[in-house]
Amino acid sequence: MYQQEHVVQYYETDRMGITHHSNYVRWMEEARVGFLKDIGWDYAKLESSGIISPVTEVECNYKKSTTFEELVVIQVSVAEFKGVRLKLNYKMFNDQDELVCQASSEHCFLNGDGKLVRLKKDYPDFYQAIMEQLDEN
Amino acid sequence: MYQQEHVVQYYETDRMGITHHSNYVRWMEEARVGFLKDIGWDYAKLESSGIISPVTEVECNYKKSTTFEELVVIQVSVAEFKGVRLKLNYKMFNDQDELVCQASSEHCFLNGDGKLVRLKKDYPDFYQAIMEQLDEN
Amino acid sequence: MYQQEHVVQYYETDRMGITHHSNYVRWMEEARVGFLKDIGWDYAKLESSGIISPVTEVECNYKKSTTFEELVVIQVSVAEFKGVRLKLNYKMFNDQDELVCQASSEHCFLNGDGKLVRLKKDYPDFYQAIMEQLDEN
Amino acid sequence: MYQQEHVVQYYETDRMGITHHSNYVRWMEEARVGFLKDIGWDYAKLESSGIISPVTEVECNYKKSTTFEELVVIQVSVAEFKGVRLKLNYKMFNDQDELVCQASSEHCFLNGDGKLVRLKKDYPDFYQAIMEQLDEN
Repeated sequence: MYQQEHVVQYYETDRMGITHHSNYVRWMEEARVGFLKDIGWDYAKLESSGIISPVTEVECNYKKSTTFEELVVIQVSVAEFKGVRLKLNYKMFNDQDELVCQASSEHCFLNGDGKLVRLKKDYPDFYQAIMEQLDEN
Repeated sequence: MYQQEHVVQYYETDRMGITHHSNYVRWMEEARVGFLKDIGWDYAKLESSGIISPVTEVECNYKKSTTFEELVVIQVSVAEFKGVRLKLNYKMFNDQDELVCQASSEHCFLNGDGKLVRLKKDYPDFYQAIMEQLDEN
Repeated sequence: MYQQEHVVQYYETDRMGITHHSNYVRWMEEARVGFLKDIGWDYAKLESSGIISPVTEVECNYKKSTTFEELVVIQVSVAEFKGVRLKLNYKMFNDQDELVCQASSEHCFLNGDGKLVRLKKDYPDFYQAIMEQLDEN
Repeated sequence: MYQQEHVVQYYETDRMGITHHSNYVRWMEEARVGFLKDIGWDYAKLESSGIISPVTEVECNYKKSTTFEELVVIQVSVAEFKGVRLKLNYKMFNDQDELVCQASSEHCFLNGDGKLVRLKKDYPDFYQAIMEQLDEN
């Protein structure tokens, strides 16, 4: 399963002394960018193929707080994909391997005219690369 | 129903030319702070009562993009509250009254020792003030 | 002198309990956008005239901390402008009228090809509107 | 000379297509945290010694824009320190070794009561560690 790390920055904390909850949504993006690069479809390739991929939904369940200087490991897997809406799952762990956040995001794919792209038909290689990461659990 | 406004800032946009999706989670907080003040329980009062209220869950459905200089109206209502976990609903509209984001957040209430506070029993006035905002739909 | 307000948000604080210093740079932008609108050259007008205006320099002197829910008044004036580089001054005050931050920013103006625009010659109306805001102190 | 890396995130870009200028101030903090750890005075040690170190001044000269996925190298050195106000210099380079931002920050050191700490006298080890990084240029 794809995973990458993020060290909590001082500017990501709030006056409760912990990471502000909005930052987890940003870390999901960080990990997603890495995930796409890992399966061979990095941003430059998407862009040169004329595809953009807006976020249509995010969901975060905060299990445990984190704070400045903590190392967070973010795992990404494919929850569901039938060719139009891609749903990704995220699990974030602190350095004691405790689950700090469980999350998901949903994405569609648009071409330069803003029209929906059907990946299965129009970009079968990309579709296949994503399906290989499908979460079997 | 409580509502407040946010004008999209330049620094909230991203290179897709639109508001970065993480900012909606921050606008939910802005509106929540206003909502709590409106029902008579602003942050200073919560703090002096020794209550903190972490976010345990957020969910955002992005319906339509917004961008720099757009005025967004954020409506807040109480989705569900039985005394322990407070679930709030948010609806955000652009200036054509189009729904741009539908969202929810969940919160618990903790005292200074980090122990769960049962609002219904321990802060009946606060509990009552929240219940008056319960979404009837 | 042009001025506008900003209420410090919870997500702008850090674990020192105060506004994170990077946010003042964002508030300068907020006030600058308002200032340009006030002198009749809002972003839409700049954009339709094909002008972009990158920041080439910022400087902030932090005099006093601020925190969540404080109202900050940001004053903007023109420090220097000879037609190429625009230097703006900012003074930010808390609600006790204490100076919390003194700052400046420098900007150039580019056309769609990324070439330097000489406002005095190419946009004399815009140049004139800016010069009327020149700080006489 | 101490240096560390930052990869520009998507959420750090703005609708001009480039890194929003406020983020460089955050990268300075990232590099400063690493610099202090490198000289043996990381945040945990400062905190357990009862020292906090607010930013009193920042200055950024933007030389060249950066954008999503670019690797930025941030160099940190001590510009000046006589025991009370620490001034740090920063140079940031893109992966073509071009200078993208030249910056500085100024800091003081406070104890738990908010009183100014004279590092030379009160924390001679810390003072010495900083002086070894003094920029000779």
